[in-house]
Amino acid sequence: MDTKQKITPIKDIGEFALIKRLLKKFSKKNPNTIKSWGDDAAIIDFKNKQTVISTDLLVEGIHFDRNYTPLKHLGYKSVIINLSDIYAMNAKPTQIVVSIAVSATYSVEALEELYEGIYLACEKYQVDLVGGDTSSSHSGMTISITAIGEVEKEEVVYRNGAKENDLICVSGDLGAAYMGLQVLLRENEVFKTNPNLQPKLEGYDYILERQLKPEARKDIVDLLKRAKIKPTAMIDISDGLSSEILHICEQSKVGCLIYEEKLPIAKETQDIGKEFNLAPSIPALNGGEDYELLFTVPLKYAEEIQRYPEISIVGHIVKKEKGNHLVSNDNKLFPLEAQGWQATNA
Amino acid sequence: MDTKQKITPIKDIGEFALIKRLLKKFSKKNPNTIKSWGDDAAIIDFKNKQTVISTDLLVEGIHFDRNYTPLKHLGYKSVIINLSDIYAMNAKPTQIVVSIAVSATYSVEALEELYEGIYLACEKYQVDLVGGDTSSSHSGMTISITAIGEVEKEEVVYRNGAKENDLICVSGDLGAAYMGLQVLLRENEVFKTNPNLQPKLEGYDYILERQLKPEARKDIVDLLKRAKIKPTAMIDISDGLSSEILHICEQSKVGCLIYEEKLPIAKETQDIGKEFNLAPSIPALNGGEDYELLFTVPLKYAEEIQRYPEISIVGHIVKKEKGNHLVSNDNKLFPLEAQGWQATNA
Repeated sequence: MDTKQKITPIKDIGEFALIKRLLKKFSKKNPNTIKSWGDDAAIIDFKNKQTVISTDLLVEGIHFDRNYTPLKHLGYKSVIINLSDIYAMNAKPTQIVVSIAVSATYSVEALEELYEGIYLACEKYQVDLVGGDTSSSHSGMTISITAIGEVEKEEVVYRNGAKENDLICVSGDLGAAYMGLQVLLRENEVFKTNPNLQPKLEGYDYILERQLKPEARKDIVDLLKRAKIKPTAMIDISDGLSSEILHICEQSKVGCLIYEEKLPIAKETQDIGKEFNLAPSIPALNGGEDYELLFTVPLKYAEEIQRYPEISIVGHIVKKEKGNHLVSNDNKLFPLEAQGWQATNA
Repeated sequence: MDTKQKITPIKDIGEFALIKRLLKKFSKKNPNTIKSWGDDAAIIDFKNKQTVISTDLLVEGIHFDRNYTPLKHLGYKSVIINLSDIYAMNAKPTQIVVSIAVSATYSVEALEELYEGIYLACEKYQVDLVGGDTSSSHSGMTISITAIGEVEKEEVVYRNGAKENDLICVSGDLGAAYMGLQVLLRENEVFKTNPNLQPKLEGYDYILERQLKPEARKDIVDLLKRAKIKPTAMIDISDGLSSEILHICEQSKVGCLIYEEKLPIAKETQDIGKEFNLAPSIPALNGGEDYELLFTVPLKYAEEIQRYPEISIVGHIVKKEKGNHLVSNDNKLFPLEAQGWQATNA
């Protein structure tokens, strides 16, 4: 018996059969999904709620590298980064549409791996896959996902509502995904030099998972709702805290003070920072791909927020004229910059 | 003074400035667009109407060829094919999100051309561009558009409602876009052989426009609404009448009879068919890219429908057991096939 993994060229089965095969496991989770796949468009009934729409593109060689990205993780992550945008509006994602262009170097089985990841994300976040498009391409893979969600009108949180004295909060910890990427890049270089060397990935579990299989912070949106705390502004951290807080400050017409010592950084991220000779606040501020939520709340919630271990207060909002700054561990003031705050190192 | 066309590499201005430049002309047209670009997601308020979502991918080298596709037309067409899907649900498109991955061979000015086409389509169809993503790619261009629309619950028309004796109707004429493509392909071959030869495109205006700058049939949806005729099933013709009527018949669990002599084919399409030695019913049945609407209505509307020159009755629905057939001009019965009905020629 041939035990090798089966490889079916996509052209052998055709687009229609491919879609059927990729989607057979998906089941409907939201009663508001009136019509899913199989017509010209999907129909969703949000009743009197508002519709939330966000879209993201992942391009092979730009956003991911096949050499160190398992396809199942890639599928999962592509969904997560879109859901994260919906949560950042304080909304609930309910549907996604997924379009994929792939070259002939991808087999049906490879796409099944990718869709297994998409499936797992849909299951975990209770989201319906309601449409999409598949196409061949001349090189590589491009994944385009649009996430659709719902929100009560009065619950929407934009980026423009932060007020002076508001607390600046972040969920989880920062910089781990960036450090995970550094480890993958290093091991990939080693592999290119000598393909017989096994990659050294033990001991890096946390940061690798943060890079390869991030989660969207549904739990934080739920927690704030239960606590009856409505953030004044919110954004998800895809490009590093530094660049994201600048978006909030610019749109809210305010300034900010962020304290380096308050940045939530996991022990593993700190340890690996040392290995790479990198102050851990650098990936935390500028690393990206954390998909944590960054939000501001009125000062009155300080005590309440401090009770949640998953939320850290990292600074506060100041008048616009005061600018946007980081207070470093040695108590110096550095202007925050979107292109990256460069520490003089510790 | 340098009169050559300016070419600005995309990397020279950065993603944020690029988006600003591409979108500066776009203005809001729908009061239900609550929040457009500039946050994590767009917010739309459809009140008690249902939300309609459709998405399409256009990949360079697969769906379009830069050699004979002007970028402005490409931008226009990419929007149209998505709006067409929304109209095919008997709904009204109101927003789009546009994601684009482009290689460094595209300049800022080239993208401006593309967005000029997107802009023109948004203006004509009164649709708001509310979000998207731009990315670099290693080769070519991929365009992913998701169209969002609204519809009253009781107005939605699916593919599955066709009943025995219903009339099968199509808007406009068929096969022209396919013949336009044949002319472009022929001239492109000539050009490859001798780049000094000018392409011969005069006299092909209509079929070239149908290929390069199709329209979505908003007018037909509006006309049927005014006439108080609600189709029992509807689909847009992107892959040829033959394949689309089979979708309706399969989902409606019925059969059909289509009459070759009733197929609406423009004079130009017929003439060029002769030039290419092709029976014009072949591109009409299997050509694709017409973006006309194919729909079924109860028999009682026969007289009313016949009053509209833009609508042709091409056949009728029969019992499922009778199958799906074409009655040819010489009165023979051919089974309709998705992969293309092959005429024995006239």
